[in-house]
Amino acid sequence: MTQTGSTLSTEQAQPAQTAAAAGHAASAALIALDWGTTSLRAYLFDANGAVLETRASTAGIMNLPRPAAEGGFDAAFDAVVGAWLDRAPELPVIAAGMVGSAQGWKEAPYVNAPASADALVDGIVRVQTARGVPLNIVPGVLQNGELPNVMRGEETQIFGALACAEPSAAGKGLLIGLPGTHAKWVMVRDAKIERFDTFMTGEVFAALSEHTILGRTMLTPDQPDTDAFLRGVRVARDKGKAGVLATIFSTRTLGLTGQLAREQQPDYLSGLLIGHELSGLEAALAQQQSTLAGSALQLIGNEALCERYRLALAQFGCHQADLVKQATERGLWRIAAQAGLVSEASGAAQAT
Amino acid sequence: MTQTGSTLSTEQAQPAQTAAAAGHAASAALIALDWGTTSLRAYLFDANGAVLETRASTAGIMNLPRPAAEGGFDAAFDAVVGAWLDRAPELPVIAAGMVGSAQGWKEAPYVNAPASADALVDGIVRVQTARGVPLNIVPGVLQNGELPNVMRGEETQIFGALACAEPSAAGKGLLIGLPGTHAKWVMVRDAKIERFDTFMTGEVFAALSEHTILGRTMLTPDQPDTDAFLRGVRVARDKGKAGVLATIFSTRTLGLTGQLAREQQPDYLSGLLIGHELSGLEAALAQQQSTLAGSALQLIGNEALCERYRLALAQFGCHQADLVKQATERGLWRIAAQAGLVSEASGAAQAT
Repeated sequence: MTQTGSTLSTEQAQPAQTAAAAGHAASAALIALDWGTTSLRAYLFDANGAVLETRASTAGIMNLPRPAAEGGFDAAFDAVVGAWLDRAPELPVIAAGMVGSAQGWKEAPYVNAPASADALVDGIVRVQTARGVPLNIVPGVLQNGELPNVMRGEETQIFGALACAEPSAAGKGLLIGLPGTHAKWVMVRDAKIERFDTFMTGEVFAALSEHTILGRTMLTPDQPDTDAFLRGVRVARDKGKAGVLATIFSTRTLGLTGQLAREQQPDYLSGLLIGHELSGLEAALAQQQSTLAGSALQLIGNEALCERYRLALAQFGCHQADLVKQATERGLWRIAAQAGLVSEASGAAQAT
Repeated sequence: MTQTGSTLSTEQAQPAQTAAAAGHAASAALIALDWGTTSLRAYLFDANGAVLETRASTAGIMNLPRPAAEGGFDAAFDAVVGAWLDRAPELPVIAAGMVGSAQGWKEAPYVNAPASADALVDGIVRVQTARGVPLNIVPGVLQNGELPNVMRGEETQIFGALACAEPSAAGKGLLIGLPGTHAKWVMVRDAKIERFDTFMTGEVFAALSEHTILGRTMLTPDQPDTDAFLRGVRVARDKGKAGVLATIFSTRTLGLTGQLAREQQPDYLSGLLIGHELSGLEAALAQQQSTLAGSALQLIGNEALCERYRLALAQFGCHQADLVKQATERGLWRIAAQAGLVSEASGAAQAT
């Protein structure tokens, strides 16, 4: 895993989302980073936990502006948050995501599941940046066993989602889905990440579409074909006994037999894979005497993708799947507050 | 699907396998072609159905020496069997495989399952070659329905395998596995291809190894690691409820947690996928009141791969899986004989 020397491309700073853009330097209280494999997103918070400003860059840990050994992490850090720190050099800085992996800036060893927010705070690892500011890195979570599971970044989003969840729901067990390249399904109980599964749905979809025979007959439609998607979901749910290795071939054979147009094949395949993911999740839930239909759940992630999951979940009888917005920001703020990086009180109602 | 202009590379003719190399021109009775997507293999038979000579080329239908519209099929045909036809211009020629697909020389429409050898014979399509010899193309088999399945080439191998199967076994139902890029599992009953499933196991393994995060931590071992393979099979069998999209991630996480060396990861992943394939097959068999443990079955294909499947099948309680050799040659001969291209009698015992 070598780092590329590709240049850092910093996006324009976004307009402030929840506070006036002018005069925020005085009230800034925290810088928080969501630092993944292929991207780096920075948030500037005021003392109330409101986002003043965000910045984004492609300088993920595998895409640093120069090699890590030559100060690549510092360079990426400075390019994204240097201006904020120039204005307010004493701001605390927190980060979550792959920046704490073995390939990151400094490894923040996994905390074992079940994991509370306190355990994450206890596991924070500090790295001294070249400009002297310490960077507080939130650890990921490991569920060890015969089929280990790991997350880095999602734990922070989950505690962000819990910040606005009903306490009762958290008590009886809340299922949180994080669709994406490696989709996670996380059971939270008593304010702890209790257990979770990882489904490589997004990455498998890309690999099948781009690198197998299934892609050869596919055409990307102008817009997503919901009917084809739902057809795939239902086939996985009702006819999926032989497993995903068998059903995916129907993407091709339905085309060969004139039952699925080329433009329908991508959404059909996507539906098949998400349907198999939910069938697998249903089977895992059954071992815990639970079902998708009986679960209240939350979704975190890209809105369009979460909407596809909501449609698919409805095919499994689950009609209560709420999209949680700004889970990353909320989670970073909450963990920083719990770690004492910002005043606990400042997370509450009024600004001073 | 465009044809490349890559040059035809004809291998050295192999030594005759079952007949004296000398003087065979006089006794040659049939030319048979196994013409797939990426390869073309030719067999010269004597009047007893013994193989006198074989030739192989990379001129599969997607790899013709020149475009199809510019005589690419004829060029490939001449390069491989021209010398045989120069010596014996009247020889009948039969072919099976993708040469009969919509992208082939001439489409031989699928025969519907359940399909007998007679139905295949009735579906033979003839194309006139430039040198005037007619080429008889065996059709593939289609099992239509909500999850259609197709085969081209395997139907011929199956009837080759049946040529040496116990008649009793064929009567009560014989399960035939054809491992490979797109593995087929075929139920044969009353000398008909009754139903079948396709598992994209080989192609998915390649796509996951080469084009997903799983490949990043893998190292190819000097020799296959049977323990790692069997571990994967057992995980799929016993812990695979969440499905293959979930279990494959353990290839990475077992590595991250120091439980699976990089050199073990390819065989572990292969075991996982084949284990999921057999679990899926078991579930499909259950719908027909059958089990893998209770099945006598045959395997057709690459010997090393079939041996891996035998090991995996034993984990599912199936200890009777016989490897069928030369199924392709036997099948081509049998269908040619049944089609009257060679004298029926000449398939029997003695040479003249």
